[in-house]
Amino acid sequence: MPEFISLLPPLEALEKFLLEINLHIRSEKISTSTALGRVTAQSIVASYPLPNFPRTTVDGYAVRSGDTHGASESLPVYLSLVGEVPMGGRPDFSLESTHCGLIHTGGMMPEGADSVVMIEYTQQVREGEVEIMRSVAAGENVIQIGEDVGEGDEVIPQGTRLRPAEIGGLMALGFHEVEVSRKPKVGIISSGDEVIPPGTEMQPGQVMDVNTYTLSALIEENGGEPVSYGIVPDELKNVQDVVAKAHAECDLVVITAGSSASARDLTSQVIDGMGKPGVLVHGVNVRPGKPTILGVCDGKPVIGLPGNPVSALVIAGLFVVPVVHLLLGISVERPRPMIPADLSVNLSSQAGREDWVPVKLLEKENHLFAEPIFGKSNLIFTLAKADGLIKIPANANGLSAGERVDVVLI
Amino acid sequence: MPEFISLLPPLEALEKFLLEINLHIRSEKISTSTALGRVTAQSIVASYPLPNFPRTTVDGYAVRSGDTHGASESLPVYLSLVGEVPMGGRPDFSLESTHCGLIHTGGMMPEGADSVVMIEYTQQVREGEVEIMRSVAAGENVIQIGEDVGEGDEVIPQGTRLRPAEIGGLMALGFHEVEVSRKPKVGIISSGDEVIPPGTEMQPGQVMDVNTYTLSALIEENGGEPVSYGIVPDELKNVQDVVAKAHAECDLVVITAGSSASARDLTSQVIDGMGKPGVLVHGVNVRPGKPTILGVCDGKPVIGLPGNPVSALVIAGLFVVPVVHLLLGISVERPRPMIPADLSVNLSSQAGREDWVPVKLLEKENHLFAEPIFGKSNLIFTLAKADGLIKIPANANGLSAGERVDVVLI
Repeated sequence: MPEFISLLPPLEALEKFLLEINLHIRSEKISTSTALGRVTAQSIVASYPLPNFPRTTVDGYAVRSGDTHGASESLPVYLSLVGEVPMGGRPDFSLESTHCGLIHTGGMMPEGADSVVMIEYTQQVREGEVEIMRSVAAGENVIQIGEDVGEGDEVIPQGTRLRPAEIGGLMALGFHEVEVSRKPKVGIISSGDEVIPPGTEMQPGQVMDVNTYTLSALIEENGGEPVSYGIVPDELKNVQDVVAKAHAECDLVVITAGSSASARDLTSQVIDGMGKPGVLVHGVNVRPGKPTILGVCDGKPVIGLPGNPVSALVIAGLFVVPVVHLLLGISVERPRPMIPADLSVNLSSQAGREDWVPVKLLEKENHLFAEPIFGKSNLIFTLAKADGLIKIPANANGLSAGERVDVVLI
Repeated sequence: MPEFISLLPPLEALEKFLLEINLHIRSEKISTSTALGRVTAQSIVASYPLPNFPRTTVDGYAVRSGDTHGASESLPVYLSLVGEVPMGGRPDFSLESTHCGLIHTGGMMPEGADSVVMIEYTQQVREGEVEIMRSVAAGENVIQIGEDVGEGDEVIPQGTRLRPAEIGGLMALGFHEVEVSRKPKVGIISSGDEVIPPGTEMQPGQVMDVNTYTLSALIEENGGEPVSYGIVPDELKNVQDVVAKAHAECDLVVITAGSSASARDLTSQVIDGMGKPGVLVHGVNVRPGKPTILGVCDGKPVIGLPGNPVSALVIAGLFVVPVVHLLLGISVERPRPMIPADLSVNLSSQAGREDWVPVKLLEKENHLFAEPIFGKSNLIFTLAKADGLIKIPANANGLSAGERVDVVLI
């Protein structure tokens, strides 16, 4: 089988493919409170500093630090109480020498004060007089203007996928709206004469459509908008028409091929006819997922996935997800969540090919093991039983029991 | 400070708290295609086997294995081609001895056949005759009925949060609807006289409300439904009224206290008045987040979080998220995503207290380092700059540079 020799490794295939995609990232302004998981379309720059007034981090008395010099429990310093800082307001007093002001955590420092003595080290001895039992340095227990963020600082780069912390950061700076990339539309086409929609009566030889739903869920998780084009019989004209419609309406088209070789050839033929350059990669040196097809038609990516649900989902993780991230303009890469574990058994693989194996994580005596889920069936419940996948690299003949592996969560 | 000694460690505090919560998990039936991230309210049992007909995993010829005995390239066996299996249909022929039938990946095995010879090892020599150049064993290249899932098997336990793979599994078994837990309603109340809603004009001494939005996002991510009750001034009656409304309408109430000690005491007072047993834990031995309050009022959990946005978000991860998971009925625990890395510097901590430190992951020479993000400000951008958090356990005085740490992603 000469084709085997010419198969590209997954990473090379992906690079070749991504290079050909034309990027037109469109953006929209949305409410920051609904922006979780969206991607910033602009760099976010602070229009004011944080904090934007000097504030204290403790409950206590605002003082001039020099006044507390040498203060101790045995030799306290006595200061005159001249006021209390209201929460959320500007102090209506300023501090002269030997004066102090009551202040609460988060309160604004009065003019003239440079530090705060924690309440624990003070005692109000009589009306209008406070005993200070510890000295403080200038700036102690105070956050200065701009100490968190300076005015004009870039606080969130363009291309950041927003987590709860960034949502909070935007709000802190008063950005109750934010410009984000539109969700890329991903057209999903299931092909196969044997495939029927869930909820209909199944006849012998038929199987329920699984890929439309697993792929939709994966795309949704990764920030895209899945658009289902239903199930298409394995017939050239039909597939052509539906792919043309999806290609016109979406930013990325994903076709899960019927499972036979002829059905896969049909996908490749359709992609080649949809625009230049057409099929770029036909077959990838990976298991599962060898019959993957990567194409670009007039700048838009079109991917042909294997029909087997496990292959389709694993390969979508390797090829569909990176395209969705590219179309979203994600430029700030977050580490991929994974769990290190020890492989529980020996695993063999064919050298020269990258293998992805579903595993279950098991804890034994406070130690985490990755237990491969076997079964020639390679059907959808292999993945439903798994916590994640491990990679056997192309340059290995397999992995040994006890070897440390990184489990990529699914 | 005697209170310090009596502070519970986070895990003990959580256990004490969760025990007191009354669970009434309500469920609803939804379309499986929208069930990503939802939690199964029932055990899912296969009503038919998968596959539910014997099917082949390759393109080739269905045969009786005995007929191929001894077949090789130099000494092929010749079989009569009696038909082709249609995709998605039942074969209209059965196989007698010395017969074979053309079959495509996923096709239904004809009666009488027990195995499939891959197309690569065959050749059609003349009309109606196929040369078989390799022998096959009984069952080779065939998936038997029920090999993936048997009829009556529990395929997804109750309390499983659905991932793309489970969505696919449900569809494969024809479950286009699924019974899931209702999203628990989490009431969020921001208190503090200094706090104003983002989008309004800020006066000196005021800060934007951050916690309502970070907590809403965190709760949404974890399967809950956040309900905002706005910002309440630090005044007993006001806080009481709003907490009572949220307590009546929601499954969990989260109050972020004003930042001063008196504001925190007010939260505790309100929780104690809301129902029995009231405050269970007042103060946890963790940094940030010492002033955390955990209460249960008439069976419903009420949590008082510190007002500082970093503390609030870290503590919500430790206490709010587990309650949301409990209220969802999640019983199938997935491993928490984390990244192992080497600590880049020495970190000291107070023995006896658990510390959570925000870190950024940096790659140097193919090696991953966790770089703590310092700054006394401890404000929201500390977290926005971080990839995750690392824990300094209570029984340590700190961690050393080069030590392996687990970065919990945020």
